Amino acid sequence: MSAPDQPEQPEQPSGLEGFGLDHLPYGVFSVAGGPRRVGVRFADTVVDLGGTGRPELEAPTLNPLMALGPQVWAETREQVTTLVGSGAARSHPLEEVALHLPFEVADYVDFYCSEHHATNVGRIMRPDDEPLLPNWRHLPVGYHGRAGTVVPSGTPVVRPHGQRRGREGPAFGPSRRLDLEAELGFVVGVGSRQGEPVPATALADHVFGVVGLNDWSARDVQGWEYQPLGPFLGKSFATSVAHWVTPLAALEAAWVPLPGQHPTPLPYLAPDDPQVARGLDIAVEVELGGHVVARPPYASTYWSPAQMLAHLTLNGASLRTGDLFASGTISGPGREQRGSLLELSWGGAEPFGTEHWPGGRTFLEDGDTVVLRYSAPGTGGGRISLGEVRGTISPAVR
Amino acid sequence: MSAPDQPEQPEQPSGLEGFGLDHLPYGVFSVAGGPRRVGVRFADTVVDLGGTGRPELEAPTLNPLMALGPQVWAETREQVTTLVGSGAARSHPLEEVALHLPFEVADYVDFYCSEHHATNVGRIMRPDDEPLLPNWRHLPVGYHGRAGTVVPSGTPVVRPHGQRRGREGPAFGPSRRLDLEAELGFVVGVGSRQGEPVPATALADHVFGVVGLNDWSARDVQGWEYQPLGPFLGKSFATSVAHWVTPLAALEAAWVPLPGQHPTPLPYLAPDDPQVARGLDIAVEVELGGHVVARPPYASTYWSPAQMLAHLTLNGASLRTGDLFASGTISGPGREQRGSLLELSWGGAEPFGTEHWPGGRTFLEDGDTVVLRYSAPGTGGGRISLGEVRGTISPAVR
Repeated sequence: MSAPDQPEQPEQPSGLEGFGLDHLPYGVFSVAGGPRRVGVRFADTVVDLGGTGRPELEAPTLNPLMALGPQVWAETREQVTTLVGSGAARSHPLEEVALHLPFEVADYVDFYCSEHHATNVGRIMRPDDEPLLPNWRHLPVGYHGRAGTVVPSGTPVVRPHGQRRGREGPAFGPSRRLDLEAELGFVVGVGSRQGEPVPATALADHVFGVVGLNDWSARDVQGWEYQPLGPFLGKSFATSVAHWVTPLAALEAAWVPLPGQHPTPLPYLAPDDPQVARGLDIAVEVELGGHVVARPPYASTYWSPAQMLAHLTLNGASLRTGDLFASGTISGPGREQRGSLLELSWGGAEPFGTEHWPGGRTFLEDGDTVVLRYSAPGTGGGRISLGEVRGTISPAVR
Repeated sequence: MSAPDQPEQPEQPSGLEGFGLDHLPYGVFSVAGGPRRVGVRFADTVVDLGGTGRPELEAPTLNPLMALGPQVWAETREQVTTLVGSGAARSHPLEEVALHLPFEVADYVDFYCSEHHATNVGRIMRPDDEPLLPNWRHLPVGYHGRAGTVVPSGTPVVRPHGQRRGREGPAFGPSRRLDLEAELGFVVGVGSRQGEPVPATALADHVFGVVGLNDWSARDVQGWEYQPLGPFLGKSFATSVAHWVTPLAALEAAWVPLPGQHPTPLPYLAPDDPQVARGLDIAVEVELGGHVVARPPYASTYWSPAQMLAHLTLNGASLRTGDLFASGTISGPGREQRGSLLELSWGGAEPFGTEHWPGGRTFLEDGDTVVLRYSAPGTGGGRISLGEVRGTISPAVR
């Protein structure tokens, strides 16, 4: 992939490099049909945390551990680091375990935090108007998605049926504009009380870690249904997340200032607090059918993780262990930094990837495999790899 | 309340009349700080179903019972009917128990099924355009709400802070246009597999029962935030449901044909099947500050419960035990059949209730108590009362 019009982005770490002692993401695994339990990824192994007498480490999801809060997270990370560093850890080769959805999703909220993405979508959908709507620079726009259809990386995605706009009224059939959305998800560990907003400064008190996320989208379904109450069936058929949740502690070296917010957001979004107005220097890679087609930089995102959290709870909405909130599609300023096929093909009008496919590509075809990869500066001086998010499109059923 | 321009609606049953042997709704209760468990309401008592050796009846939510499916639901109802009829049931007076959220909410979807409501909202919000958007008569418009802020009847509702449209950019503060929405909720017992749509004919295979629901709404917050991804903080602060879930079996006498659907919806919505194209003759009553201000008839709703279910899963979205889907605001054709203050006050422009309040009323004030009541023809010849939905507005905090 050539990318003359954007800054170079680092390559994803190869092989085991991204899963060293400075990373140690958490997941849920099972061996030979046995029970699910918590593990930690180190190199090409899963470190078994069972047998310590801590019930939260024998659990079939990360939720019990996540609920215990930052003090326990820090102690556990220290213990795991020591255990793995000692070489005495009980571990399984990755190829001998099954990996599962790492946490039980409580509520799933999807934001729309990338200025470049929102601008591209506005230009594609409403070419004659201002691309950004009047509210966009004042709040992180978001909506609730379907928690029950969040699936782990590797789960096939069945092409959904749906209504789409027809000549007179709707047409019906399998979606013709199936898309991916490269996003970053934030996983809530510690809940909050209903009626009490969570301040923007409290991100690390509540958020356990981050996870790669593909918010599969049927653009034709979405385009017909979404007025006036937002996306519904165009999104709710599947959302894929990585097997591994990277704890915030592993991202300490990845924080970068936001690109800038103008006009200045309201005080509850704490735009002047450098601990709030900061994003993560996470490099994302979108692979379609074996070819890297985009490299969206999460650091280019307008609204910060802490601002998403503060906005989500501004009205007193409570948090629960397992809540998942996502960035929305990550797109950078460059053509090849766009995190959706809608943008890469400019609404289907400009096929992309002609160097790989005769005639180029627009939306997802049956059999397409999409892999999202994420990497960030680690605390050890190199880069860490977040868990990849993989999915293959199955043909529509019925 | 006088209602010259609409058909008379039956009065709500008084006292114990609505909780006879032909009703027996399920809830969750505790006595003197003891554990939560499943009970059935009969007259002014809660019948304790514990001690039968069935773990699903000792559970702290209805979810385990709901997951067992229609055969078990029917057998259980028969056993409970016999038990209560025998006079040998162990029961507690209502005033001696605490009532709780009856089920753990998995995903919460809110629809927009009332033609009269959608038309009123369209006229209020976009007076110069067609009130119904082009998709409205082709699909039941819906969106996901926040499952984690569904609360049981009686929970105080704190007035939310939020952004609203200002002269230049947003204004900020406690919502000034806090509203109620009188709705009917449907509770899913039996889940479904991802990728496999649930046919419209399968309502009774999946839905355990119905529940009154108040979808509290901050209209000013919603109005500023909702483009383009739909309602978010304007709704997510609280949704109240009744303590009692009325099983579908108790509503056998309440089914009525839909008012009519034109143009004919797509085949997956089975508009020609009388078992699908039917609604429930449930009379709703909205009480504000001790005065009945509206009597919305659920039977006037355009889209049926079975059609909501079929649409929700058309794209292969799976169902889970505890999923809750709601009708959207129920409004009938008459002025005093409107299920929201937005409509009753015509966007705040026409205060209503001048017979009760000097100058009339528009939106909710601190200290207001809202009670929603629901009744339907029972199978015993009289009427049954669904559980009421009660909430009092607390002042904004901070």
